[in-house]
Amino acid sequence: MAEITQPSANIGVVGLAVMGSNLARNLASREGNTVAIFNRSYEKTETLLTEHPEAEFVPAKTYEEFAASLQKPRTAIIMVQAGRGTDAVIDALTEVFEPGDIIVDGGNALFTDTIRREKAVRETGINFVGAGISGGEEGALLGPSIMPGGSAEAWETLGPILKSIAAVVDGEPCVTHVGTDGAGHFVKMIHNGIEYADMQLIGEAYDLIRRGTGKSPAEIADIFTEWNKGELESYLIEITAEVLRQVDEKTGKPLVDVILDQAGSKGTGVWTVQTALDLGIPVSGIAEAVFARSVSSKPAQRAAASALPGPTASPVENVDAFIEGVRQALYASKVIAYSQGFDAIVAGAEQYNWDIKKGDIAKIWRGGCIIRARFLNRITDAYAENPGLVSLVTAPFFTDVVTQAQDSWRNVVADAAHAGIPAPVFASSLSYYDSLRADRLPAALTQGQRDFFGAHTYKRVDMEGTFHTLWSGDRTEIESVDSH
Amino acid sequence: MAEITQPSANIGVVGLAVMGSNLARNLASREGNTVAIFNRSYEKTETLLTEHPEAEFVPAKTYEEFAASLQKPRTAIIMVQAGRGTDAVIDALTEVFEPGDIIVDGGNALFTDTIRREKAVRETGINFVGAGISGGEEGALLGPSIMPGGSAEAWETLGPILKSIAAVVDGEPCVTHVGTDGAGHFVKMIHNGIEYADMQLIGEAYDLIRRGTGKSPAEIADIFTEWNKGELESYLIEITAEVLRQVDEKTGKPLVDVILDQAGSKGTGVWTVQTALDLGIPVSGIAEAVFARSVSSKPAQRAAASALPGPTASPVENVDAFIEGVRQALYASKVIAYSQGFDAIVAGAEQYNWDIKKGDIAKIWRGGCIIRARFLNRITDAYAENPGLVSLVTAPFFTDVVTQAQDSWRNVVADAAHAGIPAPVFASSLSYYDSLRADRLPAALTQGQRDFFGAHTYKRVDMEGTFHTLWSGDRTEIESVDSH
Repeated sequence: MAEITQPSANIGVVGLAVMGSNLARNLASREGNTVAIFNRSYEKTETLLTEHPEAEFVPAKTYEEFAASLQKPRTAIIMVQAGRGTDAVIDALTEVFEPGDIIVDGGNALFTDTIRREKAVRETGINFVGAGISGGEEGALLGPSIMPGGSAEAWETLGPILKSIAAVVDGEPCVTHVGTDGAGHFVKMIHNGIEYADMQLIGEAYDLIRRGTGKSPAEIADIFTEWNKGELESYLIEITAEVLRQVDEKTGKPLVDVILDQAGSKGTGVWTVQTALDLGIPVSGIAEAVFARSVSSKPAQRAAASALPGPTASPVENVDAFIEGVRQALYASKVIAYSQGFDAIVAGAEQYNWDIKKGDIAKIWRGGCIIRARFLNRITDAYAENPGLVSLVTAPFFTDVVTQAQDSWRNVVADAAHAGIPAPVFASSLSYYDSLRADRLPAALTQGQRDFFGAHTYKRVDMEGTFHTLWSGDRTEIESVDSH
Repeated sequence: MAEITQPSANIGVVGLAVMGSNLARNLASREGNTVAIFNRSYEKTETLLTEHPEAEFVPAKTYEEFAASLQKPRTAIIMVQAGRGTDAVIDALTEVFEPGDIIVDGGNALFTDTIRREKAVRETGINFVGAGISGGEEGALLGPSIMPGGSAEAWETLGPILKSIAAVVDGEPCVTHVGTDGAGHFVKMIHNGIEYADMQLIGEAYDLIRRGTGKSPAEIADIFTEWNKGELESYLIEITAEVLRQVDEKTGKPLVDVILDQAGSKGTGVWTVQTALDLGIPVSGIAEAVFARSVSSKPAQRAAASALPGPTASPVENVDAFIEGVRQALYASKVIAYSQGFDAIVAGAEQYNWDIKKGDIAKIWRGGCIIRARFLNRITDAYAENPGLVSLVTAPFFTDVVTQAQDSWRNVVADAAHAGIPAPVFASSLSYYDSLRADRLPAALTQGQRDFFGAHTYKRVDMEGTFHTLWSGDRTEIESVDSH
């Protein structure tokens, strides 16, 4: 290692596990970047130096060396496990950085932690940026979708660097300044929530075709490959075909049949639903997807329930029509998942005072990230046409989608119910659609019940005010001064 | 007001809004109780004294007087708005109480707040009990269902007092010592979550019959009255008939048609779902019920979506069969809601080290509370037969219920989908049932996808270990030492 005589790096990376190493290599591969690297144990730094001499990294053994190797304003991206590890690194960097420098947290932090950290770091004069980075290990290496929050000042320095490494679609890098403090991690969280719904919808589509028609995983792989040529074109559809086509070398069976059917999770789906509940936004598709994973991971319950009776399933009659119906149901349900996800973004922006451009979010999700898909352009278009759009599904393009899909959608949900094949997100999305467009909802009865047992009062359709019926009295209606 | 010369009250109530006043009156009406009362502003105390001289309350103008009026160990129930108000009252009481005394919070506190408060108060030597009280204003007055947490020591003194005022079913008071610290408020929270699901299911049943058959609210009231004579017998079914039968005196229309169809909430449903998400328990029915309320309360979105197309609905052919099908679907879905709710109780008990007797919880919910119902006896029986029951729906009685109901249940969910009538909790409950009993779930595909894009690894059905396929390499499988 050369002695550091003067700062030579314009960007640094702290934390050299797979994601950090790949991001550092990505940065180093772009013209104009010199990358300082630091890891708590120096072994990982040495490994990276040895394996990737072409990157010409500037290694550091201490935080002091790391800071000394960076040009001002110093800019460093932290890529460590979210949680306490992140706080420790931030503390160490604030010790050796100076006002005007920039600390970026590129991990999957909970946005409220990012808000807290940004506030604390800002008091030192240092900029703190929480940046969501999506695309997994490969995205980190070749071009992720990046969702940075933080101040406009930090974005000035950081923007060109992030643009240099982000995925590019139609000439545009998949990164934008999402908003202040926690906005970036918030949007990344919603991205992950949508990813849960999208993956579960694909799982339900696969399961319906498999159990409904008896087609093999390899045959269904071909169906997904075909779907990927049309309006469903997306990374997740593409890799689904790859996974379904994979044959297990040990048994000769389809790999999907030897994988234990208990889905894990890293928590961002749970965060999305919990946050949406706080914001009062119904993200039912995401919630059902999160729950589907947790049901799958209850082996004792599943064993006990395996003897519960199902219907006597009748085989699908018109296989091709059924598969096309599933495709359309998948598309319509996916529109609902995005519509709910964007509702959560709008509500979050309002709650936390972020100026989030919805169309730009859809744009930066077109490449690099897990939910990248052709139809995201249509979301950008929808918000360009009508920035005040109150619900994505009411945009003309998406209304057309659900209008064309709805017969199939209804049939698939009904068929799944009759056949005993679980399709929770298909069903939930359809219920949501029918709730949203309903002229009247039974919520009026709910309000009546609440007034009956708890004097919670109700409003009327035909006059202002808050009312209560004297249910245990003479059952006349009184106007209530303050609502309970 | 007489000068207090010696302590004469065995129980005190702080906070004299409707719930507090009613609880104080209930206490005073039972033999052996003398009730001290205190309110921040003395006016409410005076009103209560004037309006209910028969209660022979012992009023106090200050916390000091209040403490002086109570026999030792002093026992006081706080009935104020949950949140900071509760903390202020606790602080004031700990100032004037002594070690061994008992402070009870009878409000709807979040159980984690109760855990925090119990810990803090315990350090003073005073006992703190978080007690969930259900039954609304009438329950408070005539006999609620009470779910106290806290120490066994506190229960010794408090138990007889609470037993004196609780609802009584089959000679047993609807109160039991649920568990330590926050156990009572936790169980009360789950009770409320189940209440959300139950109410929404009733709303969906009403909506399906109304829109599916064109019957009037009064006619549907008769149907609910009829249902209340059978296995669905419960307080909520009973009051639904009352609400549906109510005619608005201003317009002559059914009241349910003039109530604004936007349902409110007080937050315990949200808490239930957020807590269940933390515990990894799929409470999909409760979640869909919470979301149904939030969809209803989005007037701008609903207005924009009102033009979205629905199906061309065909009228129900056999009206009586349809209504009986809805009844059965309601029963089966309700079993699922309870099954999920009890899963959350089991998980909470494990997480927080509470020794909760599930059968006793079902027992104390039989009277006083909002979800009181005939079939709760069956839950008590199920846990008595098999204390280690892993899922309520797998108990023989409930398996019989869903077995008999399932054809109708499936038809109703399918009919709702075809007719464009939202039935989110019916549909979600059925999906959950079919997920739980599924031999294989598409979670295996989910795990394959996660391994593909994030190297999250997977397990196999046929051998121990954690595996990863080299998706971007030669696609062989390697054993992973540590799972990501």
